[in-house]
Amino acid sequence: MTLRPLVRPPEDQPAFVLVEPQLADNIGFAARAMLNFGLTWMRLVNPRPEWPSERATATASGAALVLENATVYRSMTEALGDRQVVYATSARPRDLVKRVVTPRQAAAELRAHAAAGTRTAVLFGPERMGLINDDLAPVDAVITCPVNPDFSSLNLAQAVLLIGYEWFQAADETPATELRTGTAALASRAHLESYLLRLETELEECGFLRIPHMRPAMVRNIRALFGRMQLTDQEVRTLHGMLTELVTKRLSANSLEAPETEK
Amino acid sequence: MTLRPLVRPPEDQPAFVLVEPQLADNIGFAARAMLNFGLTWMRLVNPRPEWPSERATATASGAALVLENATVYRSMTEALGDRQVVYATSARPRDLVKRVVTPRQAAAELRAHAAAGTRTAVLFGPERMGLINDDLAPVDAVITCPVNPDFSSLNLAQAVLLIGYEWFQAADETPATELRTGTAALASRAHLESYLLRLETELEECGFLRIPHMRPAMVRNIRALFGRMQLTDQEVRTLHGMLTELVTKRLSANSLEAPETEK
Repeated sequence: MTLRPLVRPPEDQPAFVLVEPQLADNIGFAARAMLNFGLTWMRLVNPRPEWPSERATATASGAALVLENATVYRSMTEALGDRQVVYATSARPRDLVKRVVTPRQAAAELRAHAAAGTRTAVLFGPERMGLINDDLAPVDAVITCPVNPDFSSLNLAQAVLLIGYEWFQAADETPATELRTGTAALASRAHLESYLLRLETELEECGFLRIPHMRPAMVRNIRALFGRMQLTDQEVRTLHGMLTELVTKRLSANSLEAPETEK
Repeated sequence: MTLRPLVRPPEDQPAFVLVEPQLADNIGFAARAMLNFGLTWMRLVNPRPEWPSERATATASGAALVLENATVYRSMTEALGDRQVVYATSARPRDLVKRVVTPRQAAAELRAHAAAGTRTAVLFGPERMGLINDDLAPVDAVITCPVNPDFSSLNLAQAVLLIGYEWFQAADETPATELRTGTAALASRAHLESYLLRLETELEECGFLRIPHMRPAMVRNIRALFGRMQLTDQEVRTLHGMLTELVTKRLSANSLEAPETEK
C-alpha cells in the first residue's frame, strides 16, 4: 500500500501531509500551490480518490512531479513516524491546551528546524471537517491563519498555498520595495541638475516664471517634483528631447513659420 | 453598462479590479478569497463571462455579496477614474522603469494610504496573459510575489488570496505564538513545585533515584522537562492523580493485593 518515493525526499523541507483528502482536484491544486513555493514533498494519508489519480495530475498542471513523488500511508501515525516536529493546520483547536501560531511564525520555526536538521511535517485535514481533536492532541503546535471571523473557511489548496507562501517568504531576500530600471542606470544628480537648469532657463524665457515674488516657490516645487521621480539617464534624455521640441514649436509659431516636422 | 453598487463602497479598503477575467469560476473564487480577508469591494473591467453570472455565484460559495456589489466597467481608465493610488499585480514588468514591491510591502502601503483617506486599487490581469505593459505603465507600483522561479504561475484567485491575506495580516493583532488554554489557567509555580516535590519523593521511595551521584542531574532534567511544559492547573491535578494511581498499583502489586479499581 505504501508507495515508495521516486526521489530522495528533500529533508530541508517540511513534509506536507494531506490527511484523508476527499477530492482529487484538491490534491492537484495543493501540489501546484506547493511547487509555486518550492515545496515538493507531499504525503497522503488514506486519500479518498483512487491513487494515483489522473484528475489530480490534471489540476496539478505542471506540478505532476509533486504527485509522482507523493507517498501514501494508511494512518497518520505511520505518515509521521519519522518526523520530529509536527504542526497541524486548524481553524479551531477547541478544548485542547495547545500552542497556536500564525502561518508566519510557523514558517520561521519550520525554517529554524530545517536549519538544525530537524525533520518536520505540516498536517492538513480533510476538506469538509478539518482535523479532529484526537489528531491535534499530539502535535507540537497548531497553525491558525488569522481570517475574517465572519467568513473563515479556507479550502485545502488555499491553506497549502498560504503555508507554502510563508515558508518561501521566510527565506526570500527580495527587497520589499525596489525601483526596477532594467538595463538603465539612474541619472546622476549632475545629469538631472543640467536638465533642471535648462528647464528653468526655458521657463524664464517663455514667461512662465514672470512673477518675481512667486518664482522661488515655483522653482522649488518643480525641483521637488522632478527630484522624487528617480529618473534614469534615458528618461532625462527623453525630457531634454521633449523640451527641445516644445521650444522649437513655440519659436516656429512665434515667427509664423510652419513647425518643423523633421528632426 | 456600468452597474451601480448596491451598498456604499468601503473607502477604507482598496478596490480589487479584475481586468478582463476569462472564467466565471475564477471570479467566484476571487470573491471568496477576498471575503476570507474582509475585502468586499470588487470591480470588473470587461468580464468575458456574461454578467451577473450564476456560475461565479456558485464558486463564490458564501461570498455572493461581493459579486452582488461588484461594479462593471468598460475600460481600465473608467474603473480607476476615482482612484488616487493604483498597484498592479504582475510577474514581469519588463522594459518598464517601475517600482516593484512584495505583497507584504504593498499591504503596508495600502493600509497607510487607507489611514490617510487615499483611495486605492489593486489591478489583477486576465488569467492567461496577465497585464500588459500598456496597463502597467501608469500605475504607482507593481506587486510581484516572490515565488519558485521554476514554477511561478499563480492563478487569478491565488493572487487575490495572497494580496488579501497580506492586507488582513497588516492590521491583524493575533499574537504570533500563544498557548491557548481555553478556560484553564496556567499553574502557578508553587502548584507545579508541590507536584515536583511529591514526584521526587515517590521516585526516591520506588528506587528510581537510587544512584546518589546521578541524582542531582536526574532531578534537574526532570524539572527541566516539566518546567518547559507550561502546564495548566488542571494538568497538574491530572499529573497528581496519575501519580497517585501508579503508586497505589505498585503498592497493591507489592503486597499481592488486587489493584484498586475505584477512586
